[in-house]
Amino acid sequence: MTSADPSANRPLQIAITTGEPAGVGPELTAQALAGAAAHWPGAQFTVLGDAQLLAERARAVGVDWDALLAQGPRVRVEHCALGTASQAGKLDAANGRYVLDLLDAAIDGAVGGRFDAIVTAPLQKSTINDAGVPFTGHTEYFAERTHTPRVVMMLAGTGKRPLRVALATTHLPLKDVATALTIESLVETLRIIDRDLRQHFGLPAPRILVTGLNPHAGENGYLGREEIDVITPALTQANGEGIDARGPYPADTLFQPRHLDEADCVLAMFHDQGLPVLKYATFGEGINVTLGLPIIRTSVDHGTALDLAGTGRADAGSLMAAIDTAVSMAGHRRGG
Amino acid sequence: MTSADPSANRPLQIAITTGEPAGVGPELTAQALAGAAAHWPGAQFTVLGDAQLLAERARAVGVDWDALLAQGPRVRVEHCALGTASQAGKLDAANGRYVLDLLDAAIDGAVGGRFDAIVTAPLQKSTINDAGVPFTGHTEYFAERTHTPRVVMMLAGTGKRPLRVALATTHLPLKDVATALTIESLVETLRIIDRDLRQHFGLPAPRILVTGLNPHAGENGYLGREEIDVITPALTQANGEGIDARGPYPADTLFQPRHLDEADCVLAMFHDQGLPVLKYATFGEGINVTLGLPIIRTSVDHGTALDLAGTGRADAGSLMAAIDTAVSMAGHRRGG
Ligand SMILES: [Zn+2]
Ligand SMILES: [Zn+2]
Repeated sequence: MTSADPSANRPLQIAITTGEPAGVGPELTAQALAGAAAHWPGAQFTVLGDAQLLAERARAVGVDWDALLAQGPRVRVEHCALGTASQAGKLDAANGRYVLDLLDAAIDGAVGGRFDAIVTAPLQKSTINDAGVPFTGHTEYFAERTHTPRVVMMLAGTGKRPLRVALATTHLPLKDVATALTIESLVETLRIIDRDLRQHFGLPAPRILVTGLNPHAGENGYLGREEIDVITPALTQANGEGIDARGPYPADTLFQPRHLDEADCVLAMFHDQGLPVLKYATFGEGINVTLGLPIIRTSVDHGTALDLAGTGRADAGSLMAAIDTAVSMAGHRRGG
Repeated sequence: MTSADPSANRPLQIAITTGEPAGVGPELTAQALAGAAAHWPGAQFTVLGDAQLLAERARAVGVDWDALLAQGPRVRVEHCALGTASQAGKLDAANGRYVLDLLDAAIDGAVGGRFDAIVTAPLQKSTINDAGVPFTGHTEYFAERTHTPRVVMMLAGTGKRPLRVALATTHLPLKDVATALTIESLVETLRIIDRDLRQHFGLPAPRILVTGLNPHAGENGYLGREEIDVITPALTQANGEGIDARGPYPADTLFQPRHLDEADCVLAMFHDQGLPVLKYATFGEGINVTLGLPIIRTSVDHGTALDLAGTGRADAGSLMAAIDTAVSMAGHRRGG
């Protein structure tokens, strides 16, 4: 039986927002897409950015961009004009609106069905804030623009048994983390992880391991009560909904092969509990996925690397991994 | 010129406390010491524990304990009687006092100069607490019994370029971490790390990298103020005293080779910020060192593994690494 969906055989449409024009986003996009035909034969790419900027930065790192675009529909540029000419490494608030325009175009295209997934290159928050637009981050912006009340940040490596780490809280001062955790927020976070791993990662029965908040997961209440009062009740409720989530486990001993081999995702309670080990393990090839959105969005896990912009010395590994993941997620969503 | 110290050529004296009698401590000690002559030719070992228990557990895991003891002074047992017979895997509060007696004998011997270093096998806090003695942990007990106002917990791997992670705070509920950090406590912690790495690790100019407390090290105050109000002033003060400490750096990106290659130690602000990545990186071969004591103490970084006790399936790797480190530290202290 073949699918009746007439779109099932059309190429997956991936949008790439090239991010901060003074950063490495434009050149890494060119480097990553130079091998698009070989790496992602079933996908077509729409690169969002200033056409002249992209051509210049591609040339600076030795990519024959014109030839790539001339090959036909695999890679195309959707031009969006810079606010002002951009020099590699030099931030300019006059391009804050430009960076947001790229995101808006990608989000509108994905919500409207024109794109199957979005991959975002890094942006510089200060460029946008200095342009007078309050902006806290990519993830928050995607949530707001798609009217999504709760999203979950998940970082992952690639490969056959990738380490995946989702966060129960993200960019909060450490002193505010304990009070930000509630039974409701944790249950909703677990629901989102469970649903997205099923729908977009091809995992029919996702297994989630959950850390404690306190050292040694609170040691039966001696080192904090949140495991007893919040995390365990949340796990009980999630289990009752058919979600395979276990814990809370001490974070310091959870990231060991004997545990990770039994898990599809670790849910850490906060940023610096889960990300140092994830980034150590993925060695610059980590990616960032926003779960819970109505659209698919992946991202590099590094910043704009202003000092490397224009040099060709930045590593496209994370962007290629983010594209890999976006293509795979879009394929799973379509039912492939 | 040779040293005038008449003790310079005598073997290093290492005490091993065998810890919880129902756990893996006794058998791992026997396994580790079976190769003592080859591994640590310049050291002699005093094993603190019940002589009969040690003989039984050694036999259970296939170590010819009697032959080892008969070889002469390299390995000797200092007998301390169990409170009650111990069965592998079965905790009994009647042995709580016994476990403390082992520690007391080791500490007294080290303070008195009979031992150059102490290596501790794991104990079970509940055995001691259930015996009616308030006990929060090995590290705290060593500090108290040696009248040391501040100690620093450092975990480390072994090998040529070992990852070392010290903690600014240890076993506190997460919600209490931010207020526990003060300029004074951080400066004192940095002094201890600097001094002990010089004196016991043979590092003439230790380089310490310091994490922030908040995500992204607070992002210039947007995600918390402790970097600005506490950590940076502490670093300035420590630098003024000649301590090479740098930071605060975002924890999630600090544990990368390009940073770690420039560091002898990372100072993390709290338990679950530094230990998941350390334990991931050291893969069960990590060790725990208490810095700041007047004596040398190293430890395994695992627990009593009650389920493995008596089976011979526990891995002596961490205990052997702890002995390695103790021998090396004692040698450096002596000036070797
Ligand atoms: Zn601990
Ligand atoms: Zn972050």
